[in-house]
Amino acid sequence: MNTYILLLQCKDQKGIVARVSDFIFKSTGNIITLDQYSSNPRGGYFFMRVEFIADDKECNTGKLEERLNKVAGYFKAKARLYEKGVPLSMGILASKPDHCLAEILYLYKRGELGVNIPFVISNFEGHGRLVEQHNLPFYFIPANKSNRREKEIISLAKGSADFLALARYMLVLSPHFIQSFGKDIINIHHGLLPSFKGKNPYQQALDRGVKVIGATSHFVTAGLDTGPIIAQAVEEISHKDDLRTLLLKGRNLEKRALSDALRAYIEHRVFRFKDKTVIF
Amino acid sequence: MNTYILLLQCKDQKGIVARVSDFIFKSTGNIITLDQYSSNPRGGYFFMRVEFIADDKECNTGKLEERLNKVAGYFKAKARLYEKGVPLSMGILASKPDHCLAEILYLYKRGELGVNIPFVISNFEGHGRLVEQHNLPFYFIPANKSNRREKEIISLAKGSADFLALARYMLVLSPHFIQSFGKDIINIHHGLLPSFKGKNPYQQALDRGVKVIGATSHFVTAGLDTGPIIAQAVEEISHKDDLRTLLLKGRNLEKRALSDALRAYIEHRVFRFKDKTVIF
Amino acid sequence: MNTYILLLQCKDQKGIVARVSDFIFKSTGNIITLDQYSSNPRGGYFFMRVEFIADDKECNTGKLEERLNKVAGYFKAKARLYEKGVPLSMGILASKPDHCLAEILYLYKRGELGVNIPFVISNFEGHGRLVEQHNLPFYFIPANKSNRREKEIISLAKGSADFLALARYMLVLSPHFIQSFGKDIINIHHGLLPSFKGKNPYQQALDRGVKVIGATSHFVTAGLDTGPIIAQAVEEISHKDDLRTLLLKGRNLEKRALSDALRAYIEHRVFRFKDKTVIF
Amino acid sequence: MNTYILLLQCKDQKGIVARVSDFIFKSTGNIITLDQYSSNPRGGYFFMRVEFIADDKECNTGKLEERLNKVAGYFKAKARLYEKGVPLSMGILASKPDHCLAEILYLYKRGELGVNIPFVISNFEGHGRLVEQHNLPFYFIPANKSNRREKEIISLAKGSADFLALARYMLVLSPHFIQSFGKDIINIHHGLLPSFKGKNPYQQALDRGVKVIGATSHFVTAGLDTGPIIAQAVEEISHKDDLRTLLLKGRNLEKRALSDALRAYIEHRVFRFKDKTVIF
Repeated sequence: MNTYILLLQCKDQKGIVARVSDFIFKSTGNIITLDQYSSNPRGGYFFMRVEFIADDKECNTGKLEERLNKVAGYFKAKARLYEKGVPLSMGILASKPDHCLAEILYLYKRGELGVNIPFVISNFEGHGRLVEQHNLPFYFIPANKSNRREKEIISLAKGSADFLALARYMLVLSPHFIQSFGKDIINIHHGLLPSFKGKNPYQQALDRGVKVIGATSHFVTAGLDTGPIIAQAVEEISHKDDLRTLLLKGRNLEKRALSDALRAYIEHRVFRFKDKTVIF
Repeated sequence: MNTYILLLQCKDQKGIVARVSDFIFKSTGNIITLDQYSSNPRGGYFFMRVEFIADDKECNTGKLEERLNKVAGYFKAKARLYEKGVPLSMGILASKPDHCLAEILYLYKRGELGVNIPFVISNFEGHGRLVEQHNLPFYFIPANKSNRREKEIISLAKGSADFLALARYMLVLSPHFIQSFGKDIINIHHGLLPSFKGKNPYQQALDRGVKVIGATSHFVTAGLDTGPIIAQAVEEISHKDDLRTLLLKGRNLEKRALSDALRAYIEHRVFRFKDKTVIF
Repeated sequence: MNTYILLLQCKDQKGIVARVSDFIFKSTGNIITLDQYSSNPRGGYFFMRVEFIADDKECNTGKLEERLNKVAGYFKAKARLYEKGVPLSMGILASKPDHCLAEILYLYKRGELGVNIPFVISNFEGHGRLVEQHNLPFYFIPANKSNRREKEIISLAKGSADFLALARYMLVLSPHFIQSFGKDIINIHHGLLPSFKGKNPYQQALDRGVKVIGATSHFVTAGLDTGPIIAQAVEEISHKDDLRTLLLKGRNLEKRALSDALRAYIEHRVFRFKDKTVIF
Repeated sequence: MNTYILLLQCKDQKGIVARVSDFIFKSTGNIITLDQYSSNPRGGYFFMRVEFIADDKECNTGKLEERLNKVAGYFKAKARLYEKGVPLSMGILASKPDHCLAEILYLYKRGELGVNIPFVISNFEGHGRLVEQHNLPFYFIPANKSNRREKEIISLAKGSADFLALARYMLVLSPHFIQSFGKDIINIHHGLLPSFKGKNPYQQALDRGVKVIGATSHFVTAGLDTGPIIAQAVEEISHKDDLRTLLLKGRNLEKRALSDALRAYIEHRVFRFKDKTVIF
């Protein structure tokens, strides 16, 4: 008995749910959850995520994929099939601030983040001890603004990671890096995008006198802090807050937004579509 | 071109989504949104809400219902079909506090609450003016603890209301009333249930020294404040709050929780199941 | 027995609290609440709000002010004294959207907003009925982009209003208006500033794919939507939200942020300082 | 130049702020923040917290305390004086669940929790490694329901800890323990008190079908989960949540409520008064 996760996206058209659920039924599967969204019922884009149990021995992943591809082809849809419980490989990049890194590693150790972690790369050597306490490979690559050493990072990441998590990685990745890696990269920005892009967002928030701060987890694209948003976390502040307390509150927000985003991604609940996301 | 909303609930079993979506497809319908939930994938209870457009002239409600009943019968399911935009009739009962009543009437006037309001019944005569400003029938029934005058209320409500909204109605409805009315009754309780049942929940909250207060909208059952919860709203408080400010904050919470619950109910997004609700 | 509210702001220096509380003590007053904030303990700016009861017949407002001015003079402070319960006059400007206007009038009627309302001015004639139901003067001034008719508004407002509330007034007030009126003007912006300034903030939020929306109440300054922020309210959204549901949620946020800001202002809990506010 | 924190509580009476701030002024101190609260301006209880810089060499803690005691004596007040930056000693008790323990140790390591930790006591031996990675003394005391081994814990704690933090300690402390330790004990309860006292609060929340869950940090008293509440954290849930996801969300809430409460306590911002707290 396996559980499968099926993702499908295409132009909206009649009969998609019927055909897909019929395919599952005929594969002797039982739907556990089905989420579906259409950006516009009259001619928009369609997204579907189905989790189903297949209790027949015939239903191996290969056969299912073959049949699924036929259905997808019919609708000119992009479809993927995942076996639930087969973890993705999440490479991690982190600079000196360690709160997001520590949170991820803690969740990983607890089994609350169902991933493999092929490596942690950092331009801060001091993280080695923390990473090695978790029996994970640590690579110190002293990248900085004048030498981003992206080639080394790519060569480590490309073969081993299904996606990257930037757990407060303070160097902007070049468009070349993004293209060359070719898979999803998830960042945490310590501001409530689209407010306060770029440097020192908490200082910016303080200067503007806002009463709410936030953190944003998003896909990395070539534009700075403009990629599709996956999760945001917010908290009220007051005039009493200074930079120290904003940073303190902010670290909690960053941990929450990043771990929410990673959990959604890992559970295959995230669709990217143009500049936005659909999160089931 | 009509939009229909289909609700179905039954014991979980294989092929429900397939069969229902096939029925919609064969009725030339196009699914706009499909929500589905199973309380336990291995032998629980199954809930489904489908919104679909039917663009064929054949697809009148009568025919659809006939075909739907066949599908439902196959799964021993309870199924209902609504034409979107056909409003329910919501009878309102309110005592002296008027914030929930005023909120509902405002939303009604704005067209943000898609209902008909066949009547507002109150044991506070002063609400007459507000109700009549909205061109709605007002009935002053001076019910009180020693004479609840439920017979009169039932006789007004039974024929004309699909469900009742208690917009801060301060008398407990008797089990006989509930049974005799026989349809859903939605209440707003000014406390965060299951904490602070019964009288003066804000005073109770103050006495206990909580740091969060809330309001709860729920279905009325024979037990006091124990019916299935539909919506809750919360807000942080501090030692600075006294009864006056709790009441002030509370009124906003009550308006939010009640209007969220009513909106969900009116849009056919609420399933009752035993002591709980499923809200799509 | 009167209750007084004392506001004082100046450069931070030693002994302010001591001297002010001594002044109150010697005026036979008893401090109920004292709030105080220093933007930087080593050489910043100092803000204080004291609420005190004066139970002596000698302590009339005139005498208190005289003595207070001596204290303030000593610190080169700006000080004000208010008798609690003496309401400010709040002029209202509103365009067609009526949710904020209706909320304010409801709170006013309930006695939850301790102000006088000398007038409601609107460029939408239809609000007349609502305003007159509250026995308040209504002025229809058909201002629009090509003719803002600010002269008429000023001539109505200047003598009668202590401050203005813009309850969704859709025309930008000119710097000349702001200067000529010379008192505080509080606006509600339907976006989470500094994100989404200007037009159609909910559409902007939708386009950007944010997961949190908000509303901002702020003082009006010559810059568009850049004045000191008084209150912000936020709510989570998802991909399921479309413009209609954003507007719906947004209206609630606007009502909350505006009424929070007005209540704070009316209770003399708001200090303006450069581009920011201190809210006790 | 030292910063001092002064706490004072007594029956409300005239002139307290004046006299205390005068005492600070005459001690050549400068008030940084002053918070004050009266439970009832006409005859309630009065609480004050003042943070002040004393820049004179004369102003050592001993002399200040002496003078302060005179002021306090005058008002029959309970007064305490702390030198800011002198950390309290926080003993930790934890059972098997490690999320709160790990959070506290992480914050401690980061310097975000200004305490000394004289010991971590656990009835789960496996925590030894984590604690020792932080160079802190770990004591494995295999307490259980039939043998709580409180004597051993007291003998460790009494001399070395200013207060205790129960970071998910699953055994109820006896009234004898509480009395014998004689200092504050702060607990984290994994439910939104007063709802869901005692065992398995998340299962209780699930059974009741609530739409909001929470965690509560409170002082331990002889009654089960009835002590004065310091902090609460809440999060919305839906029918989709099952016990696993409630536990996941709950762990975050527990970490937030406990670390908020500990931070407030450590910064001397918490007053206990009867069954409640005043948190500045």
